[in-house]
Amino acid sequence: MKPNDLPMANPWTLARRAERMNPSVIREILKVTEKPGIISFAGGLPSPKTFPVDAFAEACAQVLRTDGRAALQYASSEGYAPLREMIAAQLPWDVDPAQVLITTGSQQGLDLVAKVLIDSGSRVLVETPTYLGALQAFAPMEPEVVSVASDAEGVDVDDLERKTGHGAERARFLYVLPNFQNPTGRTMSEARRQALVERAAAIGLPLVEDNPYGDLWFDQPPPKPLTARHPEGCIYLGSFSKVLAPGLRLGYVVAPKAIMPKLLQAKQAADLHSPSFNQRMVAEVLKDGFLERHVPTIRALYKRQCAAMLDALKTEMAGLNVQWNSPDGGMFLWVRLPEGMSAVELLPKAVDKGVAFVPGAAFYASEPDPRALRLSFVTASVEQIHIGVAALAQAIREQQQPG
Amino acid sequence: MKPNDLPMANPWTLARRAERMNPSVIREILKVTEKPGIISFAGGLPSPKTFPVDAFAEACAQVLRTDGRAALQYASSEGYAPLREMIAAQLPWDVDPAQVLITTGSQQGLDLVAKVLIDSGSRVLVETPTYLGALQAFAPMEPEVVSVASDAEGVDVDDLERKTGHGAERARFLYVLPNFQNPTGRTMSEARRQALVERAAAIGLPLVEDNPYGDLWFDQPPPKPLTARHPEGCIYLGSFSKVLAPGLRLGYVVAPKAIMPKLLQAKQAADLHSPSFNQRMVAEVLKDGFLERHVPTIRALYKRQCAAMLDALKTEMAGLNVQWNSPDGGMFLWVRLPEGMSAVELLPKAVDKGVAFVPGAAFYASEPDPRALRLSFVTASVEQIHIGVAALAQAIREQQQPG
Repeated sequence: MKPNDLPMANPWTLARRAERMNPSVIREILKVTEKPGIISFAGGLPSPKTFPVDAFAEACAQVLRTDGRAALQYASSEGYAPLREMIAAQLPWDVDPAQVLITTGSQQGLDLVAKVLIDSGSRVLVETPTYLGALQAFAPMEPEVVSVASDAEGVDVDDLERKTGHGAERARFLYVLPNFQNPTGRTMSEARRQALVERAAAIGLPLVEDNPYGDLWFDQPPPKPLTARHPEGCIYLGSFSKVLAPGLRLGYVVAPKAIMPKLLQAKQAADLHSPSFNQRMVAEVLKDGFLERHVPTIRALYKRQCAAMLDALKTEMAGLNVQWNSPDGGMFLWVRLPEGMSAVELLPKAVDKGVAFVPGAAFYASEPDPRALRLSFVTASVEQIHIGVAALAQAIREQQQPG
Repeated sequence: MKPNDLPMANPWTLARRAERMNPSVIREILKVTEKPGIISFAGGLPSPKTFPVDAFAEACAQVLRTDGRAALQYASSEGYAPLREMIAAQLPWDVDPAQVLITTGSQQGLDLVAKVLIDSGSRVLVETPTYLGALQAFAPMEPEVVSVASDAEGVDVDDLERKTGHGAERARFLYVLPNFQNPTGRTMSEARRQALVERAAAIGLPLVEDNPYGDLWFDQPPPKPLTARHPEGCIYLGSFSKVLAPGLRLGYVVAPKAIMPKLLQAKQAADLHSPSFNQRMVAEVLKDGFLERHVPTIRALYKRQCAAMLDALKTEMAGLNVQWNSPDGGMFLWVRLPEGMSAVELLPKAVDKGVAFVPGAAFYASEPDPRALRLSFVTASVEQIHIGVAALAQAIREQQQPG
């Protein structure tokens, strides 16, 4: 029997929200730039050197030997109890394990939050710029996303209050990534954090705090989370992707007890539960204080790589009127091209010279800065960083003086 | 610093869809019935005896040894290419691997389909009764769910056409589980399948075909899938949960190429990708025709267990005016209590006697049959099946003649 042998007009009607779903600009760029020989500062991937492969191999064997059938069976939607307890215990405020929901990566936390808090047309506030993956996770729930003015210290709390709105227009929450933000690498200052939670509490605006990078500090830990200051007004998203490995897809949501039942029901409807096997593997790896030994090695590596990129920028961009910041941790730094130059237009020229980045425009909910671009310093080697930054400088130079 | 030290009214406004999210009736029942000593026919869990723990242990070690860093890294949203190729190759119609999307369990396939195809108020058609998890997955997109009359052979195609509706009311799809259905255990006949796809094609109604149990036949394979007969008009959902293990949370969607990009974007927004490690483990386990050796052992076990339950029902329910069906595969059978009796009211009495089941009412989008109940024959041992069915019969007997 041939397929498609039944005569039929196209029967598919897509949901309205499908119009808002678009391929990730970044994934499209990554495809272009994954040619052999390209030095890529574009990806948001942690360095695979940091993955504790041996610890995982031991943990897998141990879990399957001692608890294999439970690890391979259906499990509770909340997540594996010992892992939830470990997460609650290591957070720097008083968290009941009942407030911890294990998610399939912290991306899923964003999906669940969107389902539970966003109606079609609901206002949602974000930083300028903000994490692209959050914009994508929220989009299917059809929010009106509004950018709040932000500077090197974080969101402007007066603009936040102005944009919160009233009545039916009132924002459902502010999504904020205070530590070593993706894409800018910036960290919200202590003063700004305190001002933000106080203002949010005063105006009754919930905060959704995303913290995938907080453990990746270089010299000192960032100020404590927003949620630690105001747990009843915040949902907190955490991840094992940057401190262990992203390929296991494990993150978590910490929510006020009043919100938890709805997040849990959304979780159950979304994928029943996150893989029981992976949860047990991670609990097994973590149990003897593994992260306290392992994470400092990631910090040291990323600090060296960041320093190499800052060195290379200083040397290679001399006289080019290019600006950049100096992150205190994380994986990214943020570059601003000379006036009149466009990062989107620069990209193909840079790829011709053997180097790739992500134009900053991808990270704005509205009014992108055409001069901005994101560089990741964690995947390329120190040697590649020097070569890649030199190539980028050459592309900028040629763009400034064409011909 | 004390938590909650900031004065603040409850700031949380839930999305309208959150009202439709409810705890799973089944999970609530399972909590009540998970007391020690209760023989449970309530769960929908595969028998852990069937999990190939040793094969997984070998596969884990192999994957981490040869491909560990890629297995632990971020990966493409589509899924691991070799696994997609294996899935396409084993399906009984012509499938391009580009049409296969790996999902975090087939439950996630339902979530993605709902996001891409359901607007608030969209009509969605389901069998009577239907899989509860599908109703839960669809609920956040706020459909109007309409039950299509169904008999032992499957959906009534005339009622289907009547209920498809016109214009803006027109149904977006029919969700259908043709093989050893959850909850009834029934299988759609060859004639009904052909009638259904022909009618669906004629009226331009898409079908969403869910097939988690199709490989678990007792004596002969079920008729070929609806999608094999009409690939352009169907989305097909498959799962590794029942043939390997559910704790890895791996399923897949096969969709027409026109629909694939939107499903992929919804997937990316939902959790970026399913765990790379788990996908490689499964591909490693599958590669030498493992399922051809393994699945027959599951079939044989479930066939014996089903036969034991049918035997026990025949013996214990004699004279009680109870009806049941005789499934050709899968995990469940469907029982109908005597007229006037309610499965919901029977449950606590049955639990008192040491046996649990799921009242059928949970599985109806509307107008539940109060007399129906679902029994799983896969988790309890043959001995427990006899004891449990005897206890159930005793509970029915006492319910019929109270006092």
